[in-house]
Amino acid sequence: MTETFVVVGGDAAGMSAASKAKRDDPDLEVVVFEKGEWVSYGACGLPYYVKGEIQSLEALVSVTPEEFREERDIDLRTGHEVVDVDPLERTVTAEVESSSETVVQSYDHLLLATGAEAVVPPIQGAEREGVYTLGSMSDGKELREYVARARTEESFQQPDRGPACRYLEDCSGPVGVVGGGYVGIEMAEALAENGFEVHLFQRSDRLLTGFSGATSDAVAEHLREQDVAVHLGSEVRALAGDGDGGNGNEGGRENNDERTDGAVRAVVTADERVPVEMVLLGTGVRPRTALAEAADIELGPTGAIATDAYRETSVPDVYAAGDCAEAIHTVTGEATYAPLALTANRHGRAVGQTVAGDPTEGGPIAGTAAVKAFETEAARTGIIDHEEARQAGFDPVSETIDAKSRAGYYPEGGTVTITLTADRETGRVLGASLVSEYGEGAVHRSHAIVGALEADATVSELENYDLAYAPPFNTTWDPVLVAAKVLSGTVQ
Amino acid sequence: MTETFVVVGGDAAGMSAASKAKRDDPDLEVVVFEKGEWVSYGACGLPYYVKGEIQSLEALVSVTPEEFREERDIDLRTGHEVVDVDPLERTVTAEVESSSETVVQSYDHLLLATGAEAVVPPIQGAEREGVYTLGSMSDGKELREYVARARTEESFQQPDRGPACRYLEDCSGPVGVVGGGYVGIEMAEALAENGFEVHLFQRSDRLLTGFSGATSDAVAEHLREQDVAVHLGSEVRALAGDGDGGNGNEGGRENNDERTDGAVRAVVTADERVPVEMVLLGTGVRPRTALAEAADIELGPTGAIATDAYRETSVPDVYAAGDCAEAIHTVTGEATYAPLALTANRHGRAVGQTVAGDPTEGGPIAGTAAVKAFETEAARTGIIDHEEARQAGFDPVSETIDAKSRAGYYPEGGTVTITLTADRETGRVLGASLVSEYGEGAVHRSHAIVGALEADATVSELENYDLAYAPPFNTTWDPVLVAAKVLSGTVQ
Repeated sequence: MTETFVVVGGDAAGMSAASKAKRDDPDLEVVVFEKGEWVSYGACGLPYYVKGEIQSLEALVSVTPEEFREERDIDLRTGHEVVDVDPLERTVTAEVESSSETVVQSYDHLLLATGAEAVVPPIQGAEREGVYTLGSMSDGKELREYVARARTEESFQQPDRGPACRYLEDCSGPVGVVGGGYVGIEMAEALAENGFEVHLFQRSDRLLTGFSGATSDAVAEHLREQDVAVHLGSEVRALAGDGDGGNGNEGGRENNDERTDGAVRAVVTADERVPVEMVLLGTGVRPRTALAEAADIELGPTGAIATDAYRETSVPDVYAAGDCAEAIHTVTGEATYAPLALTANRHGRAVGQTVAGDPTEGGPIAGTAAVKAFETEAARTGIIDHEEARQAGFDPVSETIDAKSRAGYYPEGGTVTITLTADRETGRVLGASLVSEYGEGAVHRSHAIVGALEADATVSELENYDLAYAPPFNTTWDPVLVAAKVLSGTVQ
Repeated sequence: MTETFVVVGGDAAGMSAASKAKRDDPDLEVVVFEKGEWVSYGACGLPYYVKGEIQSLEALVSVTPEEFREERDIDLRTGHEVVDVDPLERTVTAEVESSSETVVQSYDHLLLATGAEAVVPPIQGAEREGVYTLGSMSDGKELREYVARARTEESFQQPDRGPACRYLEDCSGPVGVVGGGYVGIEMAEALAENGFEVHLFQRSDRLLTGFSGATSDAVAEHLREQDVAVHLGSEVRALAGDGDGGNGNEGGRENNDERTDGAVRAVVTADERVPVEMVLLGTGVRPRTALAEAADIELGPTGAIATDAYRETSVPDVYAAGDCAEAIHTVTGEATYAPLALTANRHGRAVGQTVAGDPTEGGPIAGTAAVKAFETEAARTGIIDHEEARQAGFDPVSETIDAKSRAGYYPEGGTVTITLTADRETGRVLGASLVSEYGEGAVHRSHAIVGALEADATVSELENYDLAYAPPFNTTWDPVLVAAKVLSGTVQ
């Protein structure tokens, strides 16, 4: 009898699972429910779409719905929102957007790939007009439309918006970006490169809190060089609007900030009130777990859906993968939540292989991530934060080095700054944070450290890695080796 | 009593050892004999000096003789050629260039860091005027002078030297480069970028024989796009000269090719006779072992000086490191000869640490290497060649993939071509060869594969490496992971 594999959610994890399962077992019936119209899209590309470097949302789609249906023989049902999972009956119930009807689908294997949603922080005025998030394709579309509209409006083109304005002769805004993580930084770049005066507000005293302080400082300095106004240690208290009597009108603040109707006009922190025409909230994501919770599927300590090594949840034959699920950390062996694209693809694919009859672990994750900020690139992997390392039972020690990215005599080149963290007692490499000029290789160099983490290598072992060398690519000792050499003098 | 550490050879291995030993044990007396005047120089930078991208030979020197003497308190004696090692008496004898006197120096520890020398193949006419090699600083100086001279001579500036001429309006030469390894390719670039019509002759049917065929083909294609005439399968039989009656004079060939006086005027292979004004021999290097052999120090199977894991030779307290010595291969565990800068630095440093009282292994080497060829970059590591793998007891299997270097929708990017080799039975990664456009990351991506080799990882493990991803740097699955994914379907 034909088995049925049902997937809830048609993005990276879901479509990877569906495709792999069908390819490995063509007899399997594969049904995917996706509540929206877009499937298998590269959400990581949205900032570049808003920026204008990518011309259509369609370009972000790696495989179209038609291709999934016709070439891969997957029963992909877009516009279907799954509203209930019944593990006892082994059914899911979906509402059909176009007809308001309800369909019930039975399954033998079920994958929850419901993803994550942008967190809208409990800031007064967060629901005002002109306040955006960037999680979905429609978010991207709205932001691109905003940018295009603003750039054509005469009233937004003012000769001088101050030092934070990137192109004085064609400056729109100002605009506010709340949150100094990947999305906040990528959107700061996207908006600044379109001529907006950008104010970036970060609650913490540094950007990119998952990276090392040295990386954070380098990125903040570069953003400022690019005329982004970086407000650190700036918790946003309210997004004030039209009702408060106009941009930056100090007199009207106390009376009218309570009103939350009307378009956003200012970002208000404890220290300042910055006039803005638009606000982008890049304050993180949280896993979509409502369906799982309603079906009594266990969540883990991180708040995401708990799974075993095969991504199976507490309910047999129900799997969870991607941004809605936990994973195991390469270094600590403990549950972690790091919603990133590669994990979603890999774990989804592993589930597909498993339900097709070949049990496959997707493997642990090291929390590796990369970001470009204008002409700077940065990467991080493993555990860098000492408090986090101590909680995992390590005695962390770090060193930060600056090294030339190419031979000193080579005509091109820059600086790679690496923070490398290890356990003092065992010398085991725990993590690293790297930053360099864009093109000088901080991100690809992190590959070496990921290799060390995957192998539980010590700093001394990493120091002996026989990495490629030629003058146009590095110094004889690649910066990674320099970092290991310096740190190996500290551990033990 | 003060011990004495004597080093023969003042380049990477020798000066790394001397510096590390003196730093770790300031009481040690450290004496370095260097027959030339240059020490601690980056020979890898010579092609870029000849090319004109580096303005002085001094720029290639990382630490000057004065700094070694005054800041590091090393008794560095340039212009001293060691002509004898007496292990029984524990002395070395050096001839002083300036005075023709002889000095005898006793040692407690001795390091032979005599390096390698360019191989001049037994080609008729190889000693003609206008035939160069590129091994030493003085070779680099001569070549640079040649280039500068040629570029100013009216007679070399001809309007059209044919399709291989890079800049028709300012074309010198033609010149011949014999050998399609790193030096040959880097010098082909250096000469072509100076306006010479360059003919590259390679005995094998492909360039870069240590790399995969896919890499070789990509580099050859790119060289041809850059108007270098690449002659594959072209063993050079003779370098003909003035005496043969002029450039390409067919009639005079048989009579006069026997004469080897006069300047070089043509490269002669079995198939053709190519007129040239100059020839660069880039036909590899061999270890300088004469001193060791005279002292009855054992050579290994590769012909280089044999050592143990601490670089100690068959004679107690005599070490060998760098381009004159063997090393152990990461993958096979067998002796190998791969004279490269990082190994020399690392093994020299380890010897310094050892003689200062802290026995240190320099570690095995994976034969990792990188090369830039115009706007292409390539790297290789481990074992790629199937015959070599079989001799080491493996059952090799390889896959070659083309993958996008950045997200498909990202405005920039190119293609990374990776050949990945593994053992069929165990799945263990054996080696890889990577090539991409310059700047698209083939070289730094090889870091991930080195990490896998150092850890004896399988292809499946490599496939699960949590590598950094963001659209400006790769696809969600980095090309390295794509290669592992494809190959893991082949092994087992």
